[in-house]
Amino acid sequence: SGLVHIKNPHLDSMEEDILYHLDLGTKTHNLPAMFGDIKFVCVGGSPNRMRAFAQFMHKELGLTGDGEDLRDICAGTDRYAMYRAGPVLSISHGMGIPSISIMLHELIKLLHHAKCRDVTIIRIGTSGGLGIEAGSVVITDTAVDSSFKPRFEQVVLDDVVVRSTELDKDLTEELLACSKEIPDFPTLIGHTMCTYDFYEGQGRLDGALCSFSSEKKLKYLKRAYDAGVRNIEMESTAFAALCGLCGLKGESSCSRFR
Amino acid sequence: SGLVHIKNPHLDSMEEDILYHLDLGTKTHNLPAMFGDIKFVCVGGSPNRMRAFAQFMHKELGLTGDGEDLRDICAGTDRYAMYRAGPVLSISHGMGIPSISIMLHELIKLLHHAKCRDVTIIRIGTSGGLGIEAGSVVITDTAVDSSFKPRFEQVVLDDVVVRSTELDKDLTEELLACSKEIPDFPTLIGHTMCTYDFYEGQGRLDGALCSFSSEKKLKYLKRAYDAGVRNIEMESTAFAALCGLCGLKGESSCSRFR
Repeated sequence: SGLVHIKNPHLDSMEEDILYHLDLGTKTHNLPAMFGDIKFVCVGGSPNRMRAFAQFMHKELGLTGDGEDLRDICAGTDRYAMYRAGPVLSISHGMGIPSISIMLHELIKLLHHAKCRDVTIIRIGTSGGLGIEAGSVVITDTAVDSSFKPRFEQVVLDDVVVRSTELDKDLTEELLACSKEIPDFPTLIGHTMCTYDFYEGQGRLDGALCSFSSEKKLKYLKRAYDAGVRNIEMESTAFAALCGLCGLKGESSCSRFR
Repeated sequence: SGLVHIKNPHLDSMEEDILYHLDLGTKTHNLPAMFGDIKFVCVGGSPNRMRAFAQFMHKELGLTGDGEDLRDICAGTDRYAMYRAGPVLSISHGMGIPSISIMLHELIKLLHHAKCRDVTIIRIGTSGGLGIEAGSVVITDTAVDSSFKPRFEQVVLDDVVVRSTELDKDLTEELLACSKEIPDFPTLIGHTMCTYDFYEGQGRLDGALCSFSSEKKLKYLKRAYDAGVRNIEMESTAFAALCGLCGLKGESSCSRFR
């Protein structure tokens, strides 16, 4: 049917669904009218960049006006920012798995309530590259955890549930084909490693705490590279797991940052 | 000495330290002049609320001006917002452990570079209450994980390191004594449970995914209550662990939200 799958039997019996962190709700907003025609959702960490991306899409799509005055649809909250340009929604998710998870739960319910069909979701955030050229874009085939395993461990109450982190293969190839149409746009397909921590978790030597040597760091990053990891960030495993479970065609393509 | 402890032998040999997510650095800013007299740091998730808190402190401290035009010290980045009112710094940390960890690493280095002494840090965010009166404030004695254990598991490269999450006992008592001077300010001391997820991790029935019954949710929350948990949020274990390791007198006191 192309609709998103909500896997929550409680939702149907709720009189009202408040998407608290998006400042939207089923009784306060006409979600099908506002979002029913959305076909693409792009997400990234920074609110300013997601506004800039929406403005860029506004121009690319040749929509009326200069796109400079796009309204933040979530202006009533400062947890996330959301902009739209035609059929494209652009949303910030903050930093880290817990932050993107809250946004994705509410976004998926939003797409469900709005009866959106055949939605493609792409994370376009920043990441640290591993043995690749500066400015490269990595299109993720599989998101892996800090042990290079393609899994996301979700704590449900106090049980640990392991979820798959594979992304849509067709979309991966489609994005790679698109990148080849653009000159000087170095793009590759690879694994993306997702960590819970930016400093100690990603082998940085400049945090407030650092208990490892430069050699140990390099050995770890070498092992990651050998396992197929080409970039490191902090959201992809949760993104892949949630999109996969809810039937959203998802892809993560991050530009190299370090 | 009252100075913060940086536990990173690499830091001394660095020519420049860029606090990337705060848009500050040791070469671009005179950190001792800007922050050397800071004695209190208050942190919370939302940038707007941390601005409002700084404005409130500005008035409470009787500083000149109405405090309406406080400048965001991190205005060059939209990752975090930072304001100061006299000796009080007010900083947002976003949502979840990864987000607060990045901020704390850079804040702790900031306090180190600025040669601050005897700094007290208090998290004043929101939380969900457990069996307590609406509007109550919980002062955390110990932060616990989703198994009610007083520990924070930090992944360092691909090793798991377990860290203590106890908070400063004297500060806990001091804050409780302060609360008693204010009429109608219900305050209690209790454990704070910290989860990685807002929906499935905290027993919510209204996420995009929910695989448990209302009964199972209530049983889990009852077990948490019996273990001493009085509120639930998403940052306290990492906050307690990092502050503890770096010698910062830390406390987390969150107001009940649900």
